[in-house]
Amino acid sequence: MSLPYTLLITPLPADAPDDGSWFTETFTEVEASEPALRVSELSTQRGDGVFETLSVVNGHAQEVQPHLARLARSAEICDLPAPNLAQWSAAISQAVARIPSQGELAIKLVLSRGVEHGPSPTAWLHASAASDFSPVRQSGVRAITLDRGYDRGVAERAPWLLLGAKTLSYAVNMAALREAHRRGADDTIFVTSDGYVMEGPTSSVIIRHGDVFSTPAPSGAILHGTTQRSLFNYLERHGHAVSYRDISIEELRTADAVWLVSSVRLAVAVIELDGVQMPVDAPLTELFTEYLLSPRD
Amino acid sequence: MSLPYTLLITPLPADAPDDGSWFTETFTEVEASEPALRVSELSTQRGDGVFETLSVVNGHAQEVQPHLARLARSAEICDLPAPNLAQWSAAISQAVARIPSQGELAIKLVLSRGVEHGPSPTAWLHASAASDFSPVRQSGVRAITLDRGYDRGVAERAPWLLLGAKTLSYAVNMAALREAHRRGADDTIFVTSDGYVMEGPTSSVIIRHGDVFSTPAPSGAILHGTTQRSLFNYLERHGHAVSYRDISIEELRTADAVWLVSSVRLAVAVIELDGVQMPVDAPLTELFTEYLLSPRD
Repeated sequence: MSLPYTLLITPLPADAPDDGSWFTETFTEVEASEPALRVSELSTQRGDGVFETLSVVNGHAQEVQPHLARLARSAEICDLPAPNLAQWSAAISQAVARIPSQGELAIKLVLSRGVEHGPSPTAWLHASAASDFSPVRQSGVRAITLDRGYDRGVAERAPWLLLGAKTLSYAVNMAALREAHRRGADDTIFVTSDGYVMEGPTSSVIIRHGDVFSTPAPSGAILHGTTQRSLFNYLERHGHAVSYRDISIEELRTADAVWLVSSVRLAVAVIELDGVQMPVDAPLTELFTEYLLSPRD
Repeated sequence: MSLPYTLLITPLPADAPDDGSWFTETFTEVEASEPALRVSELSTQRGDGVFETLSVVNGHAQEVQPHLARLARSAEICDLPAPNLAQWSAAISQAVARIPSQGELAIKLVLSRGVEHGPSPTAWLHASAASDFSPVRQSGVRAITLDRGYDRGVAERAPWLLLGAKTLSYAVNMAALREAHRRGADDTIFVTSDGYVMEGPTSSVIIRHGDVFSTPAPSGAILHGTTQRSLFNYLERHGHAVSYRDISIEELRTADAVWLVSSVRLAVAVIELDGVQMPVDAPLTELFTEYLLSPRD
């Protein structure tokens, strides 16, 4: 089967029986070049839905359960019906069986609120070849910091802002990347209006000071990154100290190393921050890449 | 032709000749029940695009030019190619000629960044019957104030937040309406984290103190409402004072009347704010409705 590969999914209630064998009846393969969605889809009209992107490396879907758990968490924050994770898992398995078993691919899972005034959510899975990120894993990225407009306490105060949910409303994230390119950089690190590190538009931030690795506390204002968690487990297994905490912009600037980590691009070193060169930990970045490319569950 | 009515549009460059007669070749009518969009559409993957919703009353499309001007402004803020407004205008004319010439309808215009890695934006028009808003125009709405998480100066400081553009990333707007329903209300008025009135999730706010009508200054942090502007013109023609200015939550609470105004629901009185009854100006609300239902350009 060639890429891209698209599967429309009729979402089942979370408590539908976990047999697995009949889930395939709820899947419909469609040609990626063919229209599959109606214009009254709320995903397209309102960015109203949630998603996950996971990596498939040489036929192994990475971190399926953490991604599905986050999909369920995002759905909960957005008052969407709880997804049937066994059904989603079966959809991923079917896709992995159909797509090339070599190389790096990306699978996107989308759960939309459905057609306007419609009875139920719509859902689909879309698998495509990953871009070739080998060069950027080697050479790193130049990043800028951008004010996300929120202060550090906003998530607790205003849950309707849906911070912590991976929604389809990513226009600001995309605009922040365009702003980086406009300034001659490659990527962005969002900071709060009161000066604390949040996350990248499509990545988590990890910093190293000495032998301590830190990432912003998942207070609800940022997404809890699956790749970041996987790397922290790896680091802990190898005897390193890891810490979730508030990180000021100043601490970011004075870090011994900074990485942006995400499911498909994996770990990339920040080699320049707001135009100032940053120290780079090349051996560790290489270890990270090697680990992240190995089969992970 | 029955509703809904959908027209796919191949967007032309802004400077394509303004002949009008051949624009129809760039329009394709599609059945609303049929899929028309690919899953790799960035509108659906990222909420990455802009839109307008305008009203059609008894066969007359209301305020077409102001809506198209705002579409162009939104596209500019989002770094989308400038839309060809003559083409969009022709699309609206074609739709109006095809849909019922009686009653109230809504036309949505969508300009999406297009298919991922694709060459150009995608665009469509979708016409549907408007909900029956007569009851709510009579009885008004109960509203709550919700913190939008931004301070008053954010738009100048952080243009990448796309405030002032009508993007498809409306998940937060929809969540704010759900929060209102959860609290037993009908609608929301967003306020800044430093206590100033912004706008509703799908409407503008107008308040009256004595004979002065005010709306929050369109500083870039809010959408400049087409219906609000139309009403201000109407009020000025009738000798009333209108003012664009910063409005504190306290001023909202002590107003002699508050309206939420939007293109399709039109002007609805706020009869209760955060659980407290508000004074209602029923005669003026009726005049507003009468004016807003009359043909406007």
